[in-house]
This record gives sequence, structure tokens and C-alpha cells, in this order.
Amino acid sequence: MSNHEFYMGLAIQNAKAMKGQTDPNPLVGSVIVNDNRIVGVGTHLKAGEPHAEIHALRMAGEKAKGGTIYVTLEPCSHHGRTGPCAEAIIQAGIKKAVIATLDPNPIVAGNGVKLLQDAGIEVIIGVLEQESIQMNEVFNKFIVEKKPFVTLKAGASLDGKVATHTFSSKWITSEEARRDVHQLRSENMAILVGINTVLTDNPSLTARIPNGRNPVRVIMDSTLKIPMDVNVITDNQAETWIFTSKNHDETKKLRLEERGIRVFVTSGETSVNPKEVVEILGEHLVSSLFLEGGGNIHASFLEHQLVDKVVLYFAPKLVGGKEAPTFLEGTGIVDMQDAIDLTNTDIEKIGKDFKFTGYPVYKN
Amino acid sequence: MSNHEFYMGLAIQNAKAMKGQTDPNPLVGSVIVNDNRIVGVGTHLKAGEPHAEIHALRMAGEKAKGGTIYVTLEPCSHHGRTGPCAEAIIQAGIKKAVIATLDPNPIVAGNGVKLLQDAGIEVIIGVLEQESIQMNEVFNKFIVEKKPFVTLKAGASLDGKVATHTFSSKWITSEEARRDVHQLRSENMAILVGINTVLTDNPSLTARIPNGRNPVRVIMDSTLKIPMDVNVITDNQAETWIFTSKNHDETKKLRLEERGIRVFVTSGETSVNPKEVVEILGEHLVSSLFLEGGGNIHASFLEHQLVDKVVLYFAPKLVGGKEAPTFLEGTGIVDMQDAIDLTNTDIEKIGKDFKFTGYPVYKN
Repeated sequence: MSNHEFYMGLAIQNAKAMKGQTDPNPLVGSVIVNDNRIVGVGTHLKAGEPHAEIHALRMAGEKAKGGTIYVTLEPCSHHGRTGPCAEAIIQAGIKKAVIATLDPNPIVAGNGVKLLQDAGIEVIIGVLEQESIQMNEVFNKFIVEKKPFVTLKAGASLDGKVATHTFSSKWITSEEARRDVHQLRSENMAILVGINTVLTDNPSLTARIPNGRNPVRVIMDSTLKIPMDVNVITDNQAETWIFTSKNHDETKKLRLEERGIRVFVTSGETSVNPKEVVEILGEHLVSSLFLEGGGNIHASFLEHQLVDKVVLYFAPKLVGGKEAPTFLEGTGIVDMQDAIDLTNTDIEKIGKDFKFTGYPVYKN
Repeated sequence: MSNHEFYMGLAIQNAKAMKGQTDPNPLVGSVIVNDNRIVGVGTHLKAGEPHAEIHALRMAGEKAKGGTIYVTLEPCSHHGRTGPCAEAIIQAGIKKAVIATLDPNPIVAGNGVKLLQDAGIEVIIGVLEQESIQMNEVFNKFIVEKKPFVTLKAGASLDGKVATHTFSSKWITSEEARRDVHQLRSENMAILVGINTVLTDNPSLTARIPNGRNPVRVIMDSTLKIPMDVNVITDNQAETWIFTSKNHDETKKLRLEERGIRVFVTSGETSVNPKEVVEILGEHLVSSLFLEGGGNIHASFLEHQLVDKVVLYFAPKLVGGKEAPTFLEGTGIVDMQDAIDLTNTDIEKIGKDFKFTGYPVYKN
């Protein structure tokens, strides 16, 4: 590990510690080093409060002069609530700036760097870039595309099955893995399932962990055949939004709305296009969507290239069965060469299970 | 890590380094410690040559007296080619013996330990036991059951698919993973596939690595519909044994035998029972069998509780498709609670892929 990575790593650690308290701003951390000593540490705490660089510069005071600043995100160049950070860095007499990643918004990216360079500051970009991008992956997508960052989640046996051929499914994964799922639900603004999952499992789709924040429950149901007595309709634990097609039961729509359920009629004649669902969610400022299947919903979102991240919990067991459902059904690809590759993959053990994380790379 | 584990770890390392050169004997290592110094190291090199303990005692000479001996396997009590090791340990004046695991053969297990204890030597059993058992897993099974240790292997996408719905399958896993498969083929005495795999892929089933030893190729083919021009019949790269049912084509059998292929007619009227295949292989001194699918063969071997180990290579990609085959088909289990659990699981990265290893626990 180089010195650059060591200092940037500290900045990232401080940034990550603020997870959940900076919305709608991104996580950002900063470290100032002078003469091989850390003279300032800063992190962005809350929207409306100073940016990370300002905190670090204040801590460093006079010792910032001639020093090196590490920032996990390109310093801003615009006059926001706390003034442009690039300007403050220049004023403090910083000699060198090490930046993990540029501003994700391509319209503004590079402006902060340009200000610094014009003032004669040496700028290095890309130290621990991947980690810095990942910690703000939701923010990075939403700020640019105004559409939610979509995470596909499944819990399966090693042979990919989510149930037996008789649809027995309780429980595949361990309690530890299920707790981790509830944590992820809590970190997402909305959670989506298809009507078949509602009919088969009658799930609550809530985040059952201490201080868990329940996401909006989104159901794709092209005809509004959802029963009035299922948990997502009756339990009042969280909002429920249903996306339906033109071919829906209008009386049922009114009954659902009376019950406080929000019904979105999409443009599809008989089916609901996931692309439209994602667009509408974005318009309603839903920045993150947690996809909990089943296999046809997953296939449909992947075919439309809407999945940004894949999280899979594999239980160390074998189920078998040609007719047992897997977490990815539909038609699937034709040529093996067209399989959807996942990049930046990671695997960790959670209880007895294995948690896999990866990011789809769409070929066009 | 305790001192016991440190010394036993060294004994295991030395034992493992002899992999492939001790057959039909197991891998065994030994370390002798006196007054906190290692005074002897030994390992079994070759059948017919001294056991590990004897080498270690020779190296220690007089310094064995009053010392502690570490052995990865219970010292023998029988008068074999090199005399009973337990006797030699007693003669050398050893005070304490630390043993990783007892002799796997329940008929003899404990006899070596009893000899030592009767001579007043303190005996500790079970240090790094799991690792010592695993390094001789093939030997341990064959010596007791006279049936091959069966390893089920598959290469699949993360959703468990081994091909697309049109049966396109080249290539799922990376070159590095495929090289690892060839290494495992080389370490197994036989490799088994079903006739459908022969018809679909026309595989060679050879170990294509430097100094690779080709396993016997075993084909389950209940009617002998195997074409005469497939690689396993024509290439002369390794022996090919075909297991068929009573319902086979007798003329085809003669033609195959003329070609040097061995044909085993099992007792099944129309199908081949994998249990019988495994028994016959055992009678022919095949101690290890590598199972390379497809999904129905795998399901059948698992249902008959014949699989001892599972090795899965997962490529970080998604295929999808309700009709795309997975590596485990058949009917499968009914209740999720009856899924076959895998124990002693491990996962490692090979190239871009993940290699999973585990051992089935059959509920009965």
C-alpha cells in the first residue's frame, strides 16, 4: 500500500462512517498531510453543513500551507451553501491534491480539478477510485440519470434453486443471511416484487432489524389481481405502490386506493414494462430499488438492462429438480458468449452462506 | 495457533508435498520436538519405504529421548514392511505423542494409540484433525469401503446453468478454471459422464496439463447407443469403460470390444444403477471417481448418496432461462428442509471464477 492509498483509505473510512446521514448528498472524506504528518481530517456530516475539505482545512489551520489534501470526491467548483471547496483549497496554500474520483455528473466533472490546476496545484486523480465510486453508487447514478440504482437480490441453493419443484422454499438461507437482507432493505428506498411472489409467499417486505427503515413496497401486477387481505395491503407497515397495465380492474383500483394504496397505471396494454416502472420511481425521487424477484421479474429487468448490482446469497446446499425454479428464468440468452458478465465481483461468508456481489456489464 | 498446531502443521505440509507418490499408501508426516526445538522431521515417501515416524526418529537419534512426536496419522501397530511404528516410538523413549487422526479403518483404529499408552506415553488426539483427514480423503474411504471416493464437478453460471436453453455451453468458465479441472482429472483414477454428454459435447475427458495422467473414461450408456466415431472410442488417449443394462445391443457390444473398449453389463433390465457402477469400479481397484455430469447423472448419484465431495466452478455471469439446464436436475427434493447440506465448505477465486468445495451430509 502506497502512502497515497493509506491516506485516501482513511478518508474513505471517515466518509463511509456517515452512511445514511448525508442524504441527498454523497459520502465524502478528506485528509490533509504536511511534512509526512496528518494535520487535518474532515468528513461531510450532513447536507447543509460544510463539505469534508472545509472541515479538514479548519482542523489543519496554518499547517495546510504547502501540504497535500486527499479527497474522495472532486472538490466542488460551484458556489453552494459552503462556497466552492476548490477555492478554499487554493486560499489555504495547498500544494498538491489527490482525488479518488471526479464528480459523477459529466457536465460538471473536471471543473474543480481545473480550478486547482489553474492555481498551480499539482493534481493526482484515481487513487482508490473504485472504492470511492462504490460507496456512492446510488448517488452517482441518481444524480446523473434521475433513475433509481437497482439491486437484484436472491437467496438460492448452490444449484441456483429458490424453491423445490413443489415450491417449498422455507428456509433456503441462514438467519444471518436473512438479517443481512433486512439491512439492505433498510438501505433502499423501495423494494419490488412481482404479483406471483405476493400470491405465493404473502411477504411483508419490511426491514426487520433494529432501527430498520421500511422501503416503499412496489408490486408489479398487470391486472390488479392482488388479494385485499395480503400483508402488503393490510399491515400498514410501509407504503405500497402497485404498477398495473391498462388492462386492469377499475373497481379494484378504487378499492385499493381507498385502502391507501397508490396505483400507477402504466402505458402497457396488458403488461407492465419494468423500464417505465423505473422511470416513474425516479420521477418520485426513489433513488434506490431493491429487486426481490422471482425469476421472471429478474429476467425481465436484466433483459431491459435495468439492473445495476447483483447480490446473491448462496446456501451451501443442493436442491435439484429440472422443474425447481431458479432465481433467473424467462427465456434467457441464446449463445453462451452473450451471457451477462459481472464485474468487480466479491464473495464473503455470512453465517454458513456465501454472499456474492457483482455489477452487470451490458454488451450494448 | 498453539504450538501443537504449529508442529502438526509442519507435519501436514511435509505429508502433502508427497501427493501422488505414496499410492496406495496414505500421506503421512511427522515432527519430533524436544526442549522446544525441532529435532526430527519425517515424511512417508513411497510405499515399501519407511513410514514418516521412522524417518523422524532416525533424524532425531538420541534427541528423541524424552521428546514429543507429532504424527498426522495414528502410528501403525502391525508388523508391516518397516515394523510397527508404535514400537519404534516406545523404544526411542518418546514421552508424548500428538496424533491428528486415528487410523481410518475402524477395525484397527486405536490399536497404535493403545500400544503407546500401555507403555506410559501420554497421547493427544485430534490436533488439525480435519485437515489430516481431508488430505487422505480418497485413501480413507477406499481402505474401509473398497469403493471409489466420488467427486461431483460442475462448471456453471451464477444461476446454476451449464448451458443456454439452446444448449450453447462454450465456454462458461475461464481458462484458469478449466486448467484446474484438468488437474483434478489427473488426480482421479476414473472420470464418469452419461451418454448424453458424449452425444452433445463429444468430449475427450483427458487431463490436458503437463504430465497429466489420463483417468479411465467411464460412460453410462444403458442401450449402447454410443456412436463408434466419438473421441472416447477413437482417440486411444485413455481406456474407456462403458456400463450398460441388459437391454443393450449385443452386436454393438462386440464391435466396441473389438475396438478395445471394455463393456460391463450390469444387472439393470433397462437402466444402469450408479450404485452398481461404483461397486464394480471398486472391485477393479478404482479408488477415485470424478463425476462430470450432466444434471441427471449428478441427481442420480446424489439420490443414491454416492457423492463424497462437490467441486463447483462458478463463472461470474448470468444466463437465465426456465428451460436452460442446471448442473443438478432429475426430480429433486420435495421439502426445502430435505435439501442436501454441504459441510466443510470452502470458496476460492480461480481466475475470474469462484471454486466452491463442500462435502454432502446425507440425512439417511
